[in-house]
Amino acid sequence: MIIEIKQGQENMLNELKSRFAADHDVFTHQNRLAIQGVTPAELTAKERQAASKIFTDVPKAVQSSRLFHPEDTVIRTKHSVIGGGHFTMMAGPCSVESAAHVMRMAAVAKEGGATVLRGGAFKPRTSPYSFQGLGEQGLIALRKAADKFDMDVLTEVMDDEHVAMVAKYTDIFQIGARNMQNFSLLKAVGKTNIPVMLKRGMAATIDDVLNASEYIAACGNHQIMITERGIRTFDNKYTRNTLDIGAVPVLQELTHYPVIVDPSHAAGHTQFVTPLALAGAAISADGIVVEIHDDPAHALSDGPQALTPNQFIAMTNKVKAVHQVLANFA
Amino acid sequence: MIIEIKQGQENMLNELKSRFAADHDVFTHQNRLAIQGVTPAELTAKERQAASKIFTDVPKAVQSSRLFHPEDTVIRTKHSVIGGGHFTMMAGPCSVESAAHVMRMAAVAKEGGATVLRGGAFKPRTSPYSFQGLGEQGLIALRKAADKFDMDVLTEVMDDEHVAMVAKYTDIFQIGARNMQNFSLLKAVGKTNIPVMLKRGMAATIDDVLNASEYIAACGNHQIMITERGIRTFDNKYTRNTLDIGAVPVLQELTHYPVIVDPSHAAGHTQFVTPLALAGAAISADGIVVEIHDDPAHALSDGPQALTPNQFIAMTNKVKAVHQVLANFA
Amino acid sequence: MIIEIKQGQENMLNELKSRFAADHDVFTHQNRLAIQGVTPAELTAKERQAASKIFTDVPKAVQSSRLFHPEDTVIRTKHSVIGGGHFTMMAGPCSVESAAHVMRMAAVAKEGGATVLRGGAFKPRTSPYSFQGLGEQGLIALRKAADKFDMDVLTEVMDDEHVAMVAKYTDIFQIGARNMQNFSLLKAVGKTNIPVMLKRGMAATIDDVLNASEYIAACGNHQIMITERGIRTFDNKYTRNTLDIGAVPVLQELTHYPVIVDPSHAAGHTQFVTPLALAGAAISADGIVVEIHDDPAHALSDGPQALTPNQFIAMTNKVKAVHQVLANFA
Amino acid sequence: MIIEIKQGQENMLNELKSRFAADHDVFTHQNRLAIQGVTPAELTAKERQAASKIFTDVPKAVQSSRLFHPEDTVIRTKHSVIGGGHFTMMAGPCSVESAAHVMRMAAVAKEGGATVLRGGAFKPRTSPYSFQGLGEQGLIALRKAADKFDMDVLTEVMDDEHVAMVAKYTDIFQIGARNMQNFSLLKAVGKTNIPVMLKRGMAATIDDVLNASEYIAACGNHQIMITERGIRTFDNKYTRNTLDIGAVPVLQELTHYPVIVDPSHAAGHTQFVTPLALAGAAISADGIVVEIHDDPAHALSDGPQALTPNQFIAMTNKVKAVHQVLANFA
Repeated sequence: MIIEIKQGQENMLNELKSRFAADHDVFTHQNRLAIQGVTPAELTAKERQAASKIFTDVPKAVQSSRLFHPEDTVIRTKHSVIGGGHFTMMAGPCSVESAAHVMRMAAVAKEGGATVLRGGAFKPRTSPYSFQGLGEQGLIALRKAADKFDMDVLTEVMDDEHVAMVAKYTDIFQIGARNMQNFSLLKAVGKTNIPVMLKRGMAATIDDVLNASEYIAACGNHQIMITERGIRTFDNKYTRNTLDIGAVPVLQELTHYPVIVDPSHAAGHTQFVTPLALAGAAISADGIVVEIHDDPAHALSDGPQALTPNQFIAMTNKVKAVHQVLANFA
Repeated sequence: MIIEIKQGQENMLNELKSRFAADHDVFTHQNRLAIQGVTPAELTAKERQAASKIFTDVPKAVQSSRLFHPEDTVIRTKHSVIGGGHFTMMAGPCSVESAAHVMRMAAVAKEGGATVLRGGAFKPRTSPYSFQGLGEQGLIALRKAADKFDMDVLTEVMDDEHVAMVAKYTDIFQIGARNMQNFSLLKAVGKTNIPVMLKRGMAATIDDVLNASEYIAACGNHQIMITERGIRTFDNKYTRNTLDIGAVPVLQELTHYPVIVDPSHAAGHTQFVTPLALAGAAISADGIVVEIHDDPAHALSDGPQALTPNQFIAMTNKVKAVHQVLANFA
Repeated sequence: MIIEIKQGQENMLNELKSRFAADHDVFTHQNRLAIQGVTPAELTAKERQAASKIFTDVPKAVQSSRLFHPEDTVIRTKHSVIGGGHFTMMAGPCSVESAAHVMRMAAVAKEGGATVLRGGAFKPRTSPYSFQGLGEQGLIALRKAADKFDMDVLTEVMDDEHVAMVAKYTDIFQIGARNMQNFSLLKAVGKTNIPVMLKRGMAATIDDVLNASEYIAACGNHQIMITERGIRTFDNKYTRNTLDIGAVPVLQELTHYPVIVDPSHAAGHTQFVTPLALAGAAISADGIVVEIHDDPAHALSDGPQALTPNQFIAMTNKVKAVHQVLANFA
Repeated sequence: MIIEIKQGQENMLNELKSRFAADHDVFTHQNRLAIQGVTPAELTAKERQAASKIFTDVPKAVQSSRLFHPEDTVIRTKHSVIGGGHFTMMAGPCSVESAAHVMRMAAVAKEGGATVLRGGAFKPRTSPYSFQGLGEQGLIALRKAADKFDMDVLTEVMDDEHVAMVAKYTDIFQIGARNMQNFSLLKAVGKTNIPVMLKRGMAATIDDVLNASEYIAACGNHQIMITERGIRTFDNKYTRNTLDIGAVPVLQELTHYPVIVDPSHAAGHTQFVTPLALAGAAISADGIVVEIHDDPAHALSDGPQALTPNQFIAMTNKVKAVHQVLANFA
């Protein structure tokens, strides 16, 4: 149940909270109060009178819902504003390959208008024998490159044991698609105050994603963004995954968190990355995150889907134009 | 095998054709020749010398491939040009409900810039007890409405027996998603000279679609457009289907036929139709086909996904703006 | 709404039927009456009193439901009894390749205990350039082989125009997976009195299958069996399709029609056919339909999934043993 | 590359190992040696002569493959033998709910022939507000119940931090479907010497599962079993997941690890659990793992799919009969 309290009766928020919090999960946001497992019948007449609205058909992931939190969540990092109508560009190499390389890639990302530098230091590879990332040395290089160009760092954290260490270097945690329901990890980043980019799992329904974001929120961290990066369907001959572009407006209707599109992992092949990025901009995603590399053929991971610097710059010009032309209608 | 013949040696096209056509399927397009089931080893030295290129890794759906037919197919109907960089708007009611209603909807479609009026007279409904369409009376009304506003007619034909009758009224045949592999029907429309819109089946791979278009081409009809209308995936709680937006550039790379996006059947809910249409425009689809209705709550079919006239006009303005801004980059 | 009429009040069946049949679809089965689009509130007190039960939560595919028709449908052909606890073996080549070949395959099928001889004369091939079947000559050969061994014929009909012709030769129509929602074809076989094997489409939900069977039933033909032959999922590297073995008990709970398992098309590779057939027998399918060939490497279609005669006989022995051991528990 | 060394030349195993191990992953199993990233061309003539076979088309998950390890892995715990033609029954409550309850369930499991007692103390729940398990108290109760009935314990470990603690109580670690690609966790259990049951992820391909098992093997733990528990497809209206029964023989062909079927999570509804268990037995799975509860309506998790004690006993009798009748054919 979500209760919206009338103006002038805000004291009822605390009264209700103290009455129910011992036995129930109770959450408040501005003049709204979500009480889990309680029905309107259990309210007193006075309590009911203080309510301007009572919603009983409430999703499980209540704190993540628009019903509880109608206005957009806007995440402000040192160099970026994410959500609320802004459009954020995030780019970088799939893996941090060396200090020099990530520095060059940061320059490119910056030139294209990115304010967030992505890069993996701990890589979730399908095979144990594939390159697993540079670890903390990679994080140090990534941080340095971002600082040099006044950018934020976005990097994946793969297990709860590493959260504290990665926190020393990153501005935004990435939870990878394969870990979307690694609940221990969700709880661990939920206990920090660092923004989290939650990537949708390959076979995660919209409800699954929102329940995963709720794990983070339930631990107190409400700076969450959700990334659509393609789902697994019956056809992956020509694209690595199927970008569920419709998930963007669906998520934006259901949740207040910013929604980012990752065209690189969806496409899997360079020539489809820009088209998918444009679709993301046109459908009003809150940003895109793409992989870039100056020598894709020799990339340590995911070379086939990396944009070269030139391709990246060309893409950002188009993406900005699409974003701008649609902003004019608002 | 596809053989590209050198300039000045075009007579070899006929020589090769007459040598192989008795025992093999042989197709020609400009200076290219596809011979099924023959390898380069079976060519004479002279034949090989006449070739500027020989491709041996050739898709089964050879006539539908860019390898055989590199330039875009452009379909010219009385009122529309489809493919080759044009952007075609197609709109109309899901079902033809009455002569008056389809006339009103034609006026709306025209106002939004549509040159093709869609409408179903034979409806492939999941349940036998649902409204099955007005039949030939519907076609008559649809034709009249299109003529009144100088538009082309697009309507579904559901079985080979009806092809001749529907041909009397339509400018473009629609093959529905459920009939994408109804090979008898594909052959029947393939024997006409009326353009065909082939809708991708719910679980059809890209190769399946191209093989289906090849059935039409193999019968002599090369005026084909392919429509992405959403595929069936593990999640259809919030959208009816998953729009595989990535299929647009994939198909445009593999085939020369125009690729249309149907945001209505993918979305299933009005509020997601415009976002998906914008994604379609941004990804450079050759057109969109949408359902409109002035009283969706009482539509005889698919009301929940119909745009109202106002929503439609607003959508077309944005779609045109996105198409235009990207055209400027070309 | 389904109304179950009390014993001794059977005259009410006709009374209700004549009252509602003009404006509504009304179906009767024994003492049950399904009236589409009417609610209990529209019944008179007398009518309500005549009812022992009234069901209002009724599936669209009402005639196919257990709610309307609680007992098993048992289909009796000249040589087979299908449904109602029997276990029917159906086997034969994928395509009829020649009169002599289908005769040899019929001998093998018979030896393994099959009472139905399957074989395709009209083949729904993905590519227009693949072997399309022998047509009517194939049907003649198939009929002759079946007659020689006192077996029934099962063969696919691909379009409504062919229904009358195929009817001359077959005992059971097969509707292929790709045609499961070819509604014209469903109506055409629904107007005959020949049993129909309806194969589940690759991406058809359970409800879709039942709505498809309802198209046949709505035309008056209630001799239907449903075949699970594998669905399309995200992984087809090692098997051609994913056998949805759970669909068997699900369908048997929802519908009264016999449910057959086709392990050949699900497996796609010989070595997995017998395991899947055993799973089908263990889960209490009403029968299996398998493809056999004495020279799979040279089969005109689907060779990789054909059982050789020896493999087939070995499989049938195991399948019968599993069926028997479970029958002992009943 | 996998090299099979001739009898009498076993010393070459060590020679090759010492030559390549510094720069490459090298694994040995009996007279076979897998060297990652090396081709036959890099072998000396003498080395090549020592080989009875050299395989170059080798899967990434090499240690998990039959090519490297042709014979079945047989896992021997205190009370169970898993793999190699044995059939192992595993049963217990979804969650450990109380010491008394798990004790009663252990008695039932034992009576039905189970040698492994399953039960969750740490529960991976979709929503953060659902019951998350009793934690270590649950493990203590589970251990006690298993000991009382001379059974092994099987329980899920959800993160690497808990591995050491759970190891104190369990005989078999369970890696849940949602954690199948939690690579940190796979490495952590891979460093123990406790057998691991790896559940296939909802959208994991066969290759994904084998690569996940390889993570465990790469850390030195080769006591692995793989559990098919249903995959996510386009239809989950009537069953919770789609049991991919064909995955059992596919996995048994590709890998030497035992393959277990979990009919409970696939079915999601009690009435389909026994049919799916029978399909598992008929297809020659190495065992089944099922959930039981004496009061499903009040179970703390997954009640709708739990077998009651009576249903469980009835199921085990049938399953044993099917297993036995097929064993007679071997």
